[in-house]
This record gives sequence, C-alpha cells and structure tokens, in this order.
Amino acid sequence: RIDGKRLWDTLMAMATIGATPKGGVNRVTLTEVDRSGRAQFALWCKQAGLTLRSDSMGNMFARRPGRDNSRPPVLFGSHLDSQPTGGKFDGALGVIAGLEVMRTLDDLGIVTEAPVELINWTDEEGSRFGRAMMGSAVWAGVHPEATIKSLRDAEGITVAEALTAIGAEGAEPATHTPADSYFELHIEQGPILEREAKTIGIVTGAQAQVWFDATLTGQDSHAGTTPPDARRDALAGAAEIILLVERIMRAQGNAGRGTVGRLTVHPNSPNVVPGEIRFGCEFRHPDDAVIATIVDDFPKRAADLAAARGLALRITPVFRVAATPFDADCIDLVRQACARLGYPAREMVSGAGHDAVHVATVIPTAMIFTPCKDGLSHNEAESITPDEAEAGTQILLDVVLARANR
Amino acid sequence: RIDGKRLWDTLMAMATIGATPKGGVNRVTLTEVDRSGRAQFALWCKQAGLTLRSDSMGNMFARRPGRDNSRPPVLFGSHLDSQPTGGKFDGALGVIAGLEVMRTLDDLGIVTEAPVELINWTDEEGSRFGRAMMGSAVWAGVHPEATIKSLRDAEGITVAEALTAIGAEGAEPATHTPADSYFELHIEQGPILEREAKTIGIVTGAQAQVWFDATLTGQDSHAGTTPPDARRDALAGAAEIILLVERIMRAQGNAGRGTVGRLTVHPNSPNVVPGEIRFGCEFRHPDDAVIATIVDDFPKRAADLAAARGLALRITPVFRVAATPFDADCIDLVRQACARLGYPAREMVSGAGHDAVHVATVIPTAMIFTPCKDGLSHNEAESITPDEAEAGTQILLDVVLARANR
Ligand SMILES: NC(=O)NCCC(=O)O
Ligand SMILES: NC(=O)NCCC(=O)O
Repeated sequence: RIDGKRLWDTLMAMATIGATPKGGVNRVTLTEVDRSGRAQFALWCKQAGLTLRSDSMGNMFARRPGRDNSRPPVLFGSHLDSQPTGGKFDGALGVIAGLEVMRTLDDLGIVTEAPVELINWTDEEGSRFGRAMMGSAVWAGVHPEATIKSLRDAEGITVAEALTAIGAEGAEPATHTPADSYFELHIEQGPILEREAKTIGIVTGAQAQVWFDATLTGQDSHAGTTPPDARRDALAGAAEIILLVERIMRAQGNAGRGTVGRLTVHPNSPNVVPGEIRFGCEFRHPDDAVIATIVDDFPKRAADLAAARGLALRITPVFRVAATPFDADCIDLVRQACARLGYPAREMVSGAGHDAVHVATVIPTAMIFTPCKDGLSHNEAESITPDEAEAGTQILLDVVLARANR
Repeated sequence: RIDGKRLWDTLMAMATIGATPKGGVNRVTLTEVDRSGRAQFALWCKQAGLTLRSDSMGNMFARRPGRDNSRPPVLFGSHLDSQPTGGKFDGALGVIAGLEVMRTLDDLGIVTEAPVELINWTDEEGSRFGRAMMGSAVWAGVHPEATIKSLRDAEGITVAEALTAIGAEGAEPATHTPADSYFELHIEQGPILEREAKTIGIVTGAQAQVWFDATLTGQDSHAGTTPPDARRDALAGAAEIILLVERIMRAQGNAGRGTVGRLTVHPNSPNVVPGEIRFGCEFRHPDDAVIATIVDDFPKRAADLAAARGLALRITPVFRVAATPFDADCIDLVRQACARLGYPAREMVSGAGHDAVHVATVIPTAMIFTPCKDGLSHNEAESITPDEAEAGTQILLDVVLARANR
C-alpha cells in the first residue's frame, strides 16, 4: 500500500511553492515559480533514484528501470503548472501521486517487468499562452513544436524564450516514443463524484472543446464629447458577444459550456470610449457535432452583432480538441482496481481537458478522478482530503503495476 | 499678432515627446515621458525669460512680470499630459499657445500692467489614477491633497510616489492665491465647430459629470466543468451592466453620455470563469438634475442585475463635477475678441472636463475652443490645422492683454 501521510506531506510541500495568501497556488507555466517547482520535483526524483530527462518542450520524464528494459514503459503523470489563482491539487496531485508510486515500489523492493516513467508536462493550464496542454500536444504530435514555441504571452514573450529563461528546455526531442500505456490521476474539478459520494471516477474519455481568439475594433473617442450615435464602442459590442456566448451555452442545457475568460480593453482609460477589445472564448460539449455547429455559427452571429454597431470583428478558432474516448483495456484496469480495493466508483466523461487527451491519440490511455470540495477548481479555495488523495494514488499504483507486470 | 509658424513648430516639437507610431502621443501623467515633456517646457520658459515655480502637486507656473507686480496675475494654460493613446493637441495646444503669447509679448516689447502666468497642470487626463483634473482640483481646493496623493495606479504606485519618481514636486504649496482671471485654450474634442464651420467656440461652461469605481465579485471556476446553473460569472454580469450604462445614456437622447472605459478581468485566464471584474464608468449631462438621478438610480439598477446572478457589486461615485458656468465678464471678453478679429464663433458648453472647471470655482474663468478634425479626441488620429491653432492663440493673446491691462 502507498504511504498516505508521505503523499500528503509531499503535496503540501509542493503547495508552498507559489502559495497565495488565499490558500491557493500561483505557479504559472515557465515562470520563476514554475522553475522552483520543477527543481523541487527534480530533487525528489533524484532522491528516489529515478533517472531524469527533459525534452525540448520542457516536459520532464523520471524513469525507474524494469527487469526488461527493452519493453515499452508504462507512463503516468500530470502537470505542476497552475492557473494564476489556482488550487493546490489541479495537476500537482497526479505528479506527486506518481512520485508516491515510485517511492512505494522502492519500499516494497518491487522490480516491475517493464520500466515505468513519471511525467511532468509543460503548460497544461493554457492560462499564459492561450493554448492548454501544450507540452503533451507537441509530444503527441497534435501541434507542431514550431507553432507552439512561437506563441506569445500578454507581455510578448514567446514559449521558446520562456523555456530558455528558466532553463527548462532539455536535450531530448519532444516526440513520443513507443510506450505501453499512460495513466493520469487528477481531481475531477467538477461536482459529480462529491454529489454521489463516490471515491473514484473511472474516466472513459473527455469532452470536445474549441477555443477562439478574437479582436473587436471600433474607435477610441472622448467619453464626454462623443454623442451616442457617433460612438463605435468596442466594449459595448463585446458585452453583447459575452452574453451571446452565455446564451449559446444555456441552449445546450446542463451539458453546455461557454466562457469568456480573458478580455483586455484598449486603451483602458476611464474617459475614453474603448476602441479595441481582445478576448478569448471557449465552448465545450461531450458531442463533437455540437462543437462543430458552434464553430460554424458562433463567429457569424458575433460578427453580425459587431457589424450592427459599426465594429469590425476578427475571430479565429485557435485550439480544438475532439471528444476523446480512452482505451477500453486501460479503463477496464481502473474499473477492476476500484472493485478489488472496494472504492465506490462511477464512470464519467471529463469536463476538463487533460494531457491524457493528447497522449490518448498515440498511446493507450485512461484517467482516474478523485472528488474535490464543492466541485471547485481553477480557484484558490480548491480542496481535497488526504483520504481522497490516498485512494486515487492507490488505484494509480494498482493499474501501473498491473500493466507493467503483464 | 502671434507667430503662427513658431506656434506650430513648437507644437510639433512637443508632439515628438511620447510620439506613437500611429501619429499620436503617449505622454501619460508623471511617467518618464511626462518628465521629458516638462523638462522641454521648462527650457522654453527659461529661454523666454519666464520665472518658473512648481507646487507640491507638480503644477508648473511660468511668470512674466507686469508693471505693477502687486496686482493679481492673469493666468492661462492647460496640460501637457495625454491619454495613453492620445493626440498631439489635447492639452498641449493650450500650454504651447500660452508660451506663444509670452513670446509675442516679448517680440512686441509689451509690459502688461498685471503680471501674467502660464500654467501646466498635473494629470488633467485622469487615465492613470482614475480622477481627472487632479492638479487643478487640489490647487482650487476641490479635493484634499492627501486624498489625491494617496490614489494608486494599476501598478499600485501612488500619486505621491509618482511625483517624487520624476522629480515633479515643487516647493510651493498646491493652493490658489488671488488671481485676476484664468483663460484656457483647448481643442473642442467634439464635432460641433467643424460641422458649423466656426473657427472659435466661446465656452460658457462645462457639463456635469460623475465617475464610478466598481468591483463585481462572483466565483472563479473551471470553464470546462462548471455547469451553467453553478456559475457565478462576473464578466457576464459586467456585460449586462455595460449595456445598462449604454441604455441610460441613450435614454437621454443626443445629450446623453455614459461610458465604461476601463475594465479588468480577474484572473483573466481563457479557461477560468471570471471571478472578479473591476471597472470604471462615467456619465455626463449639461443638467445637474440628470446626473443626480443617475447617482441615485444607476447603482441600484446595476446591483439588481448583479444580485440576479448571485454576484456582489461594490460601486462608489469617486469623482463628481457639477455643471459649471464660466465667468460672464471673461466670456464676454472672448466674445469681443472674436468680433474684433473677425472669427466666426459660437457659444457652447464643454462636453469634456477641463482644469478651467476647477479653477472656475475660485477664479473668474473662461475657455476658448478650436475645432478638431471629425470631432475626434482621445485618439491618436486627433488633428487640427495650423490656422486653427493660430486663431485660438490670437484670441488668447487678445483676452490676456485686455485683462492684464485693464
Ligand atoms: N485540467 C485542467 O484544468 N486543464 C486545463 C485545460 C482545460 O481547461 O481543459
Ligand atoms: N479635456 C479632457 O479630455 N479632459 C479629460 C477629462 C474629461 O474626460 O473630461
């Protein structure tokens, strides 16, 4: 069995890196804080006798050899980056649980048949450069490395520059090599498990999503002298589009998701009618067809609203993930582990994107969810119990062992 | 007569300080660029033999002695600070025209009876610290100096710190002393003079305005997992308030003004339902009663919209200026100067706030407007002709002389 106290202590130690006054974590990807998180993780890996490699996207791989090292490894992991006002567990749980799996294998003197590898993926959150699951996307060949590396943050810093700035770039090419399977433990980030008092979510796949980048252009003008009919107020136009996104979400009922999470106003001066708004919006749904319809219709409807106000709208879908089913055998292993260990569980589709979604396009993959308080995530108040962390890690150990020894 | 070419060349020289690629100016108050603008102005004043003093708000006073220096001086001026994406003339015209008046008095060897003083007011624009006409407000006793000095910009820097940082603080107390009168030449920043082919606006007063600071609080949560009915999306709530501001403006017809010019999203991450929006909005109208009604009603209506979404709204009026009539004698002097010099003119109320509005509460005041292209201001494309600048400056010279020699 894994050591629940050691797991929790390690989680709490990681949570001190980038800790916020409100009890959350600000460990945004490729910042100095992320550098500290990575350094701490590397130290723990070294102390556990693991061999650490990084690839050119900064993805970190910590390997424990097996008896037969010609066999493709069993992979598991998650991400140490966080939202700017994120929680202690989104991502970190899966990485630290992976470390606990390694430590437990050592405690028990187990040599697995196949080697096992723990991964810390770069930029899962997408908050800084506007694309989520960046490191795993390049590794899986879903997005070209050059495209991702030339994305810029709000300060104009590219991914390539940010990687170099914190020394995260490694010698390995960021491409997948044969692997047996990939498992990712993550908090659910939603309310279903808690509501149904289940300990484990057996994740059968992830829903579809599309992210748009948009710029709405009107004309800066004087707030005191520009009459109503002479205004081309880009913020008033954006307000209509924000409410359109919400209506499209609500039209899908409880399964609908539509969010404007990012928006900046130019020139952002109290007495200037805003001339330009840049914003991002995203939609999600378990059904690819719903997302396809939104990709077709939403930009037109938004452009109509803009045009009626004399505003110009540029809008592009920049990130799209199809609904992704996970591997039946890997899912079944999670199911069996829950039964064997006696954890109340249910099958579910992930509402969030995860590195597992990109990995699943090239390697047999499944995910394990644990509950989180009030279903709250991407929030400093995000919270889980030590028991929940322990249960999820126990399942992770179980499926990794099963797969590495088969 | 004033020297139109010298005036224009000096205006263009000032416009190089903070020049933007789009032909405008970014000379935001108390920045390094503002420091350069102030230094250039100080040099020109010195070269013109003027005595320069600054007060504790960084307001600059350049004095030309009269024959009887016990007489209260005739004041004139405007501001050298600009919007972040501002034009070359908003403010700078009034200051540089004042310099041209001084130079012309020298050319003609005129000694006025009363002394005359040219003023560059600190932070007229209000874009950085959220209150317009800051320097003149303190000088006129409209706002306490300590209150203004403790205002912070978006980076958390106080007015006091910013003043010290660029060495703008002077030895004089920032309070008014007896003065004969104050005249301010400014571009109209609206379309009326251009539309009616008038060369000069005889400004009889300024309209009322109120600025609000607001914070709307919901809950950060995950864009992919938070169902529609569990969201407390502060940005969607802000969108409704932005459109409410627009409706309130439109309900006043062509005289209505209502603007949300400044808005920031927290945490501003593409896949986080925004938990907090900070914004500023402002309303203006020639009639104080209309603004009084808005001050009573708008916060309630906005709070109702917020409450219906489970959001909390904090909203405070932070800056309020009553409709301000200028001094009848000073207005009459402008009227007479237009007649004498043969410029087509009309009387009008200013849509914008100006330092003259605060000064008018303690000193007999009037303003002179000149047209600007397409009525456009607070925009890098702001434009006037050399003839328009010359005409306005000629009127300024005329009224200053009349008043200083009476
Ligand atoms: N798990 C998670 O929060 N991922 C970030 C990408 C997304 O928003 O789906
Ligand atoms: N003249 C001018 O643009 N003043 C700034 C303050 C205001 O917006 O009224």
